[in-house]
Amino acid sequence: MMKPAESPATIALIANDVGVSVTTVSKVLNGRADVAAQTRARVEASLQRHGYRRRNRRLPAITGHVDLVFHEFDTAWAMEVIRGVEAVTAPARVELVISQLGGKHRPPRHWADDLLVRSPLGVLLVLCHPTESQRKLLLRQRIPFVVLDTDSATAASVPTVGSNNFNGGLLATRHLLELGHRRIAVISGPADVLCARARVAGYRSAHDDAGAPIDPALVRYGAFTGQSGYEIGLEMLSGPDRPTAVFAGSDMQAMGVIRAARRLGLQVPADVSVVGYDNVPMSAWAATALTTVDQNLPDMGGTAARMLLDLARGADVPMTRVDLVTELVIRETTAPPRFRPNPAA
Amino acid sequence: MMKPAESPATIALIANDVGVSVTTVSKVLNGRADVAAQTRARVEASLQRHGYRRRNRRLPAITGHVDLVFHEFDTAWAMEVIRGVEAVTAPARVELVISQLGGKHRPPRHWADDLLVRSPLGVLLVLCHPTESQRKLLLRQRIPFVVLDTDSATAASVPTVGSNNFNGGLLATRHLLELGHRRIAVISGPADVLCARARVAGYRSAHDDAGAPIDPALVRYGAFTGQSGYEIGLEMLSGPDRPTAVFAGSDMQAMGVIRAARRLGLQVPADVSVVGYDNVPMSAWAATALTTVDQNLPDMGGTAARMLLDLARGADVPMTRVDLVTELVIRETTAPPRFRPNPAA
Repeated sequence: MMKPAESPATIALIANDVGVSVTTVSKVLNGRADVAAQTRARVEASLQRHGYRRRNRRLPAITGHVDLVFHEFDTAWAMEVIRGVEAVTAPARVELVISQLGGKHRPPRHWADDLLVRSPLGVLLVLCHPTESQRKLLLRQRIPFVVLDTDSATAASVPTVGSNNFNGGLLATRHLLELGHRRIAVISGPADVLCARARVAGYRSAHDDAGAPIDPALVRYGAFTGQSGYEIGLEMLSGPDRPTAVFAGSDMQAMGVIRAARRLGLQVPADVSVVGYDNVPMSAWAATALTTVDQNLPDMGGTAARMLLDLARGADVPMTRVDLVTELVIRETTAPPRFRPNPAA
Repeated sequence: MMKPAESPATIALIANDVGVSVTTVSKVLNGRADVAAQTRARVEASLQRHGYRRRNRRLPAITGHVDLVFHEFDTAWAMEVIRGVEAVTAPARVELVISQLGGKHRPPRHWADDLLVRSPLGVLLVLCHPTESQRKLLLRQRIPFVVLDTDSATAASVPTVGSNNFNGGLLATRHLLELGHRRIAVISGPADVLCARARVAGYRSAHDDAGAPIDPALVRYGAFTGQSGYEIGLEMLSGPDRPTAVFAGSDMQAMGVIRAARRLGLQVPADVSVVGYDNVPMSAWAATALTTVDQNLPDMGGTAARMLLDLARGADVPMTRVDLVTELVIRETTAPPRFRPNPAA
């Protein structure tokens, strides 16, 4: 694995050779204008003499950073997106600057100003959208942006990467129906979040396909958190006519539901089946490994990052929405119901 | 909440007023040299006329970014550190650039070169260390760096933030001893990682204090992963003289042990108690909420970031190690043993 060759030329070596500062060599490498022509020529000559290798010659020269803006850093979910983005930006030697909006879905007023000062190659917004005036400002300043959003509808002129939430809801519910469940609850995300509604639409569609009626009391909207899964789970599972299966809107929420079931003395999946959503790494290591919908978060991050770098390189990227497929991952929290519930319910 | 005042001055407004580009206004705000003196004066006048508010006047002027380098992006753990770092850098309006070394604990050769080109305010390395020559280069170029490492020993001249692993191991084991356990296994991290050994040392010390002997077969080193907890857990818990409690070196590893127990038909905590390490958010939402050692990861990230910004501002920061305290969080996976094991064991 080791090459016997002499050590490769470094910026420090070049600086020493020419008798200039490391910063000056960096400026030459970055094509900055504030270096005297004669100095530049001497640095270039030394770079060539020492066989200094500029990296990634194949790619059009883009240097700089990409801004990755989250609405908030919510643990495992955000990390999966970061992982996918970094797998694209690192090989392109583009820096990745991350920030979060403290739970807000619209950047604050001063955001675009600060952005212009930083002057990124592009902006990738996760679960948040620029306002109309921010969008116009970015367009005028030719700073490309891509939105990563599991929502199903965005402005036509905003390139967006998402995943098929309707299909995710359909697959999860169809799996439970095929196991024989007829009282299936859904605890989705917040009702004002489109992806949460799309998953419920998939849940309804699966019922329609199977000719199974839906009890409206079993359709609930949570907050994607463990706490909301636990609270709504406790309430739903302690009633006399409890559901035999719950489709939860996130893995965290599913874990809250499972805790609620345990608290009530119910076994998962013997007494109640649970399906999550996201497929974060820890879901495979839950005491009972979680059956869940994989929305390929690293893939979403990677796809959005590729679109953004293409835009930054001046490529024509269609200003449309790309939806990745969602897949059901069947593990241990789903099983046939113990008893067929009363069909009149 | 809404103020009726006129909208605050933006960079775009100033640019329009003076008749220059947004970039020029940005350059003036950033104190960049490449703006004609006359233009600068006109921009400054317009900024003052419109009451443009530069942010964070109280802080010494530092602009730029901090490099946050992980040895790898391992889900929830890394996110907790990012969260703590961002809580310090965002209010200081310092950009946060993140990257990872693909699992390596030493940056590759070209790393320092790339870093000099990017010229950060400072570098925060998580679970990785610059090589001696990289360290010297950073010092020569006056780029401050701080290491965040749960290891207990680092070079004296490297400012480091860690946590007290010995104490963590001691607290976890003492808790199990106080519950009456006498066959306590430890599955730590890799044996070549100092923090893993320090936790085992704490485990031993707790036994010494209690006058309890240790069965060497119960001291094992894993890989901090769910998989290693599962595999070593299966092996240890299926023997005839199995431990009644397991202290696992990470929350993920603890979840793997709990899965192994379940697979063998053992109840947690009735048949076997399990203690984790880290206190990642999901540990509170496990089916049986995890008793674990909280090493305050966001606090570690925040402390390291504050040290780094102080260094970047030219403050004198002692070149020593800061260890945060570790605390035991008792939840549901620990209970007294069902039977006192044979004291001759």
